[in-house]
Amino acid sequence: MEMNVTQGDYFTSYEDLEIHRLMLEDEPRTDTYRRAILGNKNYFKDKVVMDVGCGTGILSIFCAQAGAKKVYAIEASNLVKLAKEIVKENNFEDIIEVIHSKVEDATLPGDLKVDAIVSEWMGFYLLHEGMLDSVLVARDKFLKEGGEMFPESAVIYVAPCSVPQLYNKWTNFYGVSLSTFAKQLRASKSSKPEIMQISQENLLGAEIAMAWINLREDTVNDLNCYSIQHVVGASKTGQYQGLCVWFECNFPELSSGSRVVLSTGPEAKLTHWKQTVILLPEEQNVDEQEPIAFLLDMNRDKNSSRRYNLELTLLDPQEVEHPVPCTCDMTKCILIKVVMSQHTEHAMQQNGIIEDDPLDDDE
Amino acid sequence: MEMNVTQGDYFTSYEDLEIHRLMLEDEPRTDTYRRAILGNKNYFKDKVVMDVGCGTGILSIFCAQAGAKKVYAIEASNLVKLAKEIVKENNFEDIIEVIHSKVEDATLPGDLKVDAIVSEWMGFYLLHEGMLDSVLVARDKFLKEGGEMFPESAVIYVAPCSVPQLYNKWTNFYGVSLSTFAKQLRASKSSKPEIMQISQENLLGAEIAMAWINLREDTVNDLNCYSIQHVVGASKTGQYQGLCVWFECNFPELSSGSRVVLSTGPEAKLTHWKQTVILLPEEQNVDEQEPIAFLLDMNRDKNSSRRYNLELTLLDPQEVEHPVPCTCDMTKCILIKVVMSQHTEHAMQQNGIIEDDPLDDDE
Repeated sequence: MEMNVTQGDYFTSYEDLEIHRLMLEDEPRTDTYRRAILGNKNYFKDKVVMDVGCGTGILSIFCAQAGAKKVYAIEASNLVKLAKEIVKENNFEDIIEVIHSKVEDATLPGDLKVDAIVSEWMGFYLLHEGMLDSVLVARDKFLKEGGEMFPESAVIYVAPCSVPQLYNKWTNFYGVSLSTFAKQLRASKSSKPEIMQISQENLLGAEIAMAWINLREDTVNDLNCYSIQHVVGASKTGQYQGLCVWFECNFPELSSGSRVVLSTGPEAKLTHWKQTVILLPEEQNVDEQEPIAFLLDMNRDKNSSRRYNLELTLLDPQEVEHPVPCTCDMTKCILIKVVMSQHTEHAMQQNGIIEDDPLDDDE
Repeated sequence: MEMNVTQGDYFTSYEDLEIHRLMLEDEPRTDTYRRAILGNKNYFKDKVVMDVGCGTGILSIFCAQAGAKKVYAIEASNLVKLAKEIVKENNFEDIIEVIHSKVEDATLPGDLKVDAIVSEWMGFYLLHEGMLDSVLVARDKFLKEGGEMFPESAVIYVAPCSVPQLYNKWTNFYGVSLSTFAKQLRASKSSKPEIMQISQENLLGAEIAMAWINLREDTVNDLNCYSIQHVVGASKTGQYQGLCVWFECNFPELSSGSRVVLSTGPEAKLTHWKQTVILLPEEQNVDEQEPIAFLLDMNRDKNSSRRYNLELTLLDPQEVEHPVPCTCDMTKCILIKVVMSQHTEHAMQQNGIIEDDPLDDDE
C-alpha cells in the first residue's frame, strides 16, 4: 500500500496538458466548435474532414459524431499519442486517423482531397503565435474546390478603453502613495500588449474592424500586415488608457439556420484569450464625444514569423481624416451628421417609410 | 502629438513589477501587515526597525507611519531604486534608509542593533523559494536581545482534500470521453505540487500542524526538514484526491490587544499564495470516519537550498499509530474515544462542572 507520489516520467509535458486543460475548459471555445459541427450534421454526413493541429482530438471526435466518414487529425507535437488513445476511447478509430506530422509535411493516401478543414488555430489578438499560416497551407494542399473551412472567417476589432483595475488605486494605497510605482508599471506595461479582461463599461468608444480574414481565399502573405487609422468620438467622459483588441470567428451556415460565431469581445463570455490591450504610457482624460484618433499597425515580426508587432500611434484628430459619419464632436463631423440625417429622413419620407409630421413646419 | 508606445527601456523588469503588483494587491497580505504594524503604534514609536527584502518599501512606510524613528530597508534587487523614490514620495527619506544589499552582506553604522525586524518572506506552502533563511540571518546579525519579529511565528497545516474542479468532468465532456486525458493529467499533476484554490467544503478531514516555526529562536538548520505522520478520520464520504497544505503567520501582540494572524487556509480570504495541493495519481473513495493515513516529508533540496521537495507517502491505517483521540472509525479509536469522554465527564462531575443526570442509572 505504500506509494510514493513524487516521481513522474510522462511523455506529455505537464505544461502541454495544462494548456489543453485550459483550452478544453474554455466553454465558449469548446461549445462553439461543438455547435458549429454538430449543428451541421446534414453537411458533415459522409464527408472527409481534416483537423489541423488536433491536440487532444476533441474537434475530430465532434466531426465523427456529426457523421463524417473519415477524419484526418494532424498533430505535430507529442500529444499525438494521447489523441490516438482518446479516439480509441470514443470508438472512432475506424473513422479518425491521427497523423503525427506538421501539416506542411503531411500526405494523404492517393493525393486525396478533403471536403472540410476544421481547426482551432487562434492565438491572443487572433494572430499571436497563431497557426493560421499552417491552416492556409493545409487548405491549398488538401481542400477540395468549394470545400468548407471551420471557421471560414475571422475579424479583429479595436476600441479605445480605460483600465481602472490597473491604474486607479495607487495614489492612496492603504495610506501609502505609490505614484512612482504606478508610473513605472504604466511605462513597463506600455512596452508590450497586456492580456486582460476588459468589461463592456470600460470601452470608451465604438469598435472598428481592423482586419477581416477570409479563410477560403486569403494567402499567407495577406496575413503579413494589418493597419487601421481611425477617429472615434468618446462614448462617455473617462480616462483613455489603452486600445482594446479582440476577435470574432464565423463558422459556415450550412444546415443549422443560425450563424455560429465565437466572439472574444468584452460583451461576450470570457474566454482564455481574454482581451488584448495596448496600454498608453500616459492616460488622456477625454470628454464625451471628444475625438480619439489613432493608428494601429500589426506587422509580422521579420525574425519570427509566428509573432507580430503591434504598434499604436496616437494621432492629432485635427490632422487626420474622420469617418463619415463620425461620432466625434468636431464641428465638421457634427455638421456632416446633421446633413446626413436630414438626407436620410428626406429619403425615408419620399419612400413613405416615415410620414411628414403635420406639426412640423420646418420643411 | 505623435507618440510611439512600443518602445521601452526600464531598469525594473516587467516581471518584477507584475509580481509586486500581485503582492501589493493581495489584500489579506498587505492589510494584515498594515494592521500588525499600525495597530502597534505604542510599540513602534521611536523604535529602530529593519525591513528585510523591502521590495517597493511599503512595509517600511507602514513602520515609519507607526512612529519608528529609523527604518533600514534592505533590498538586494534592482527594485531598490524604485523603493527609494517611493520613500521620497511619502516624505520619509529622513527615517527610511534604503540599502542595496543582500542582508547577509549588509552592515549598519557603528554595529547598530535594531528593535524589530519586519519582513514578508513567505513563499508557496510557506517555504518555497522562501527567504526565511535570510530573515534568520538578519535576526542573528542585527536584532537586539528581546527584539521583536514581524511575524514572530508561522505554522504549516495539512489536510486531506478532494479537487473536483480538476478531475470530475472528463468522463463525459461535451459528449466526449476524455478519461485518457484525465488519467495523464492526474499522473502529470502528481509529479509536482499544484498551486490552486481549495474551498473549505473540499477538505476531507481536520487539518494538522506539520511545522511550527518560531522566528525568535529557530535556526537555518531547523528549516531543513519537516515531517508528519498522521491518521485522520474522513469528515465525510468523498474522493480523497490530495493533501492540501497551507500556512498561517502570527504577529506579536503588543499594544493592539487582539492577535493579528495572516491565514492562507481554505477558510480564509484567498491570497496570492492560494493553497498548495499534493495530488494523488489515483483517487481513493473514502467513507465518513474512514481512516486516512499519510506521511508527508518536506526536505530542503540538496542542490538548491531555496527549494524543498515534498514527498507524500500513503500509509496503511492498520499499520501505523493513531493519534489519541482519533477521529477515525477503527474499533480501537472508537473505544479510546468512548473511554476518554467518560473520563472527561467523570472529571467534570467531580469538579462540579456538570451535574450527575438524576435519570441516568448507568453509573
